[in-house]
Amino acid sequence: MHDTFKIGHTSTSVSLAVGVAKARDLAGRKENVIALIGDGSLSGGEAYEGLNNAAILNSNIIIIVNDNDMSIAINQGGLYSNLKLLRDTNGTAELNFFKSLGFDYHYVSDGNNVKMLIEKFKEVKDINKPVIVHIKTLKGKGLPQAENNKEKFHWTMPGILNETQSTPTENYYSITTDFILQKAQKDKSIVAITPATPGAYGFTQDFRDKMGTQFVDVGIAEEHAIAYASALAKNGAKPILAIMSSFVQRTYDQLSQDLCLNKSPATILLFWGAISEADATHLGIFDMSMMCNIPNLVCLAPTNKEEYLAMLEWSTEQTEHPVVIRVPFIPIKATNQEDNTDYSKINKSKLVSSGEKVAILGLGNFFELAQNLTTKIKETLGFNATLINPIYYSGLDKELLETLKNNHKVVITLEDGILEGGFGQKVASFYGNSDMKVLNYGAEKAFTDRESLDELYTKFRLKTDLIVEDIKKSF
Amino acid sequence: MHDTFKIGHTSTSVSLAVGVAKARDLAGRKENVIALIGDGSLSGGEAYEGLNNAAILNSNIIIIVNDNDMSIAINQGGLYSNLKLLRDTNGTAELNFFKSLGFDYHYVSDGNNVKMLIEKFKEVKDINKPVIVHIKTLKGKGLPQAENNKEKFHWTMPGILNETQSTPTENYYSITTDFILQKAQKDKSIVAITPATPGAYGFTQDFRDKMGTQFVDVGIAEEHAIAYASALAKNGAKPILAIMSSFVQRTYDQLSQDLCLNKSPATILLFWGAISEADATHLGIFDMSMMCNIPNLVCLAPTNKEEYLAMLEWSTEQTEHPVVIRVPFIPIKATNQEDNTDYSKINKSKLVSSGEKVAILGLGNFFELAQNLTTKIKETLGFNATLINPIYYSGLDKELLETLKNNHKVVITLEDGILEGGFGQKVASFYGNSDMKVLNYGAEKAFTDRESLDELYTKFRLKTDLIVEDIKKSF
Repeated sequence: MHDTFKIGHTSTSVSLAVGVAKARDLAGRKENVIALIGDGSLSGGEAYEGLNNAAILNSNIIIIVNDNDMSIAINQGGLYSNLKLLRDTNGTAELNFFKSLGFDYHYVSDGNNVKMLIEKFKEVKDINKPVIVHIKTLKGKGLPQAENNKEKFHWTMPGILNETQSTPTENYYSITTDFILQKAQKDKSIVAITPATPGAYGFTQDFRDKMGTQFVDVGIAEEHAIAYASALAKNGAKPILAIMSSFVQRTYDQLSQDLCLNKSPATILLFWGAISEADATHLGIFDMSMMCNIPNLVCLAPTNKEEYLAMLEWSTEQTEHPVVIRVPFIPIKATNQEDNTDYSKINKSKLVSSGEKVAILGLGNFFELAQNLTTKIKETLGFNATLINPIYYSGLDKELLETLKNNHKVVITLEDGILEGGFGQKVASFYGNSDMKVLNYGAEKAFTDRESLDELYTKFRLKTDLIVEDIKKSF
Repeated sequence: MHDTFKIGHTSTSVSLAVGVAKARDLAGRKENVIALIGDGSLSGGEAYEGLNNAAILNSNIIIIVNDNDMSIAINQGGLYSNLKLLRDTNGTAELNFFKSLGFDYHYVSDGNNVKMLIEKFKEVKDINKPVIVHIKTLKGKGLPQAENNKEKFHWTMPGILNETQSTPTENYYSITTDFILQKAQKDKSIVAITPATPGAYGFTQDFRDKMGTQFVDVGIAEEHAIAYASALAKNGAKPILAIMSSFVQRTYDQLSQDLCLNKSPATILLFWGAISEADATHLGIFDMSMMCNIPNLVCLAPTNKEEYLAMLEWSTEQTEHPVVIRVPFIPIKATNQEDNTDYSKINKSKLVSSGEKVAILGLGNFFELAQNLTTKIKETLGFNATLINPIYYSGLDKELLETLKNNHKVVITLEDGILEGGFGQKVASFYGNSDMKVLNYGAEKAFTDRESLDELYTKFRLKTDLIVEDIKKSF
């Protein structure tokens, strides 16, 4: 039996294998339980917690450490000096991280050599105690492009081998790095932080080089990344932590306790947050529901370039709030008008155009859908709906929502994430004691798996014609 | 400067200190940065992630490991054999966990000896690299009762020194351990798991001894605990993982990915979930909002002894759902009637008594408040309100909610946790497109800090007279 679990986040295999082995022991069976973990994944807290428990299992568990001296980007952490020492000494060095945790330890100098692997596996098969088999491998082995460009080939889309160099166009990654670089040159307290995924948001090698000590990759260590950013912010530095929606899930407690309870003014840039065609392990739909219910966290959803840059500027300079900015996951849109909004007025939404009967709150990525919906309403129902850019999803502009009661019957919320626990349900609760109808649109609470965006939008009724149908029923 | 952060969860100090040190370096200052961490806290993933990054800081950071050979309960994990080796060899053993991560290492054999400490601190002060000072101490030093009963004195309320042995009375802890013990004796696949806090839910030494290998304390390693339970459940065992509301926050991603994506039928018993007078670091008000928005997780809120036991029985024997049972955090209540509910009918609420105009959904701990509210409504408003025990807080009984539209104008939800992202807001959203008024009651999204329960209930309007006032305004 293999691949017992559907898994896409790192650092989980050892923990899971300890459970598999314990289930086997309780049932009195004797099969081998084998976990495979990469060197990069070893920096994650869950991997360490798993190792610490595997070591005292007192029965068979074989943990293969696939050491290709590479994480997603370059490895980060004190552990990696020990892995290097072990590789350099053919596994013989006295100082040994794995042995210090109580494991029996084996080393295979060429982990790409199947014969050597089989020999070693025969040796450890049916062993009655926890054992580490540390194998040295080459990342990208056999594909020269991958061997020579390990970070790029960690994850690519098909067709990249024939890719021609395209002229770089402006996008939310490039304006982010431009902003950070410019600011960092003038202000030594700016620090850009990534937990191991710099490539996911355009923190290129050039960017990292230019930032120097003002760039920190903490490795696959999301919990640490948040605590670290909190401490930097609390001590006069200006941390900007970039993280992917799917991986921020590792940090609920650090967001709550290390960051928000301490009101540390760190800036978190949340990338890849959106309903998407991603597989079930990398969905970007949970972050808003998870983060917007943590006290003291100011959650911002920009809808265009100028708003985003103004929020970034405000967030890095203010000293009172932990802030997350959900970077748009749509093609860049520019208004070419400077945004002079005062973002210190927490929870103040923007009333974009005043209308009647129906008010639409189009959050972040879905502001454009909200705009299109006003057009559709005008065309099909013959009136001007009110259009609102909520800006904040951690709280409500209660004053504005209150005034909508005067000449509106229906409020519509649109959010690019799960509905449950999200922004729209707060709006529904606010209006619970009134005659206002509220229609919430967003994703279902479910692990969708590589479904097409069109299918998902249809299922969630995130289309102007479907919403207009619903509005008609509300009058 | 000391105690820079308000912190109550473990394993955070090193991560935070790395951030403090980096902020110092960026500002070009030279002060010493010191983190203090206990041996028990070293099993937490965040501590390891912090250590791994501290080791490569390349400037001053002094990490004091206060090793009293004790966690909250007994230490668990491979690491502790190494700490023992280091203590036994006066810090001289070659095999050294801290050195393997790249630290300079110092040992103090009597960490309760202030003179020895000062000498060592003078030696490492102003050091320009990461250093570990491993000090051996005695937990409870100076108070014989604490020295001799380390686990009990990890945390106590005032007055315990004069405590007389009271006759044990039945409570939710005792019926939990009775249930588990009885079941475990007949079924070898039952495993009770705790992440380091067995005392918090009555997993006494006697219980642990009787359970034998069917009890596992994984140490302070909440992330591992969830993945471990998932793997056990997925491989034929029946794990029952007990965890405190405040600490389950460490596991959002493991709940989502390791457990729920894999639909592993593990049982999680959630203890201490309630609005309380606790300090801001140990609040039990966030768990429901965090957990009920994770797909596939069945969240159950029992309201009395019989329901709780029936849920436990169902959950441990079913094979389709990850389940969390929010153990009542109120004095035990028995109906003395066996509960024959079929809990496999997910999201099916119990209609306790049918009335008119107002329907009250009293979740878990607050079912009694809901009962009292029906009485108050009868007394003051003169009609019989409908009383519902929702049972599930991860989803809605839409059929029942739909029928309420016939003869009700107001639905009231009561939940013992934060409102935002919780159960009540789902109800408000469900009724958004109807004429039903919905009033949600629960805690504000805020870190309250040792406020009296009466103050909190008044502030949140969780009192029958205040709710009746609100109802009057809704008609």
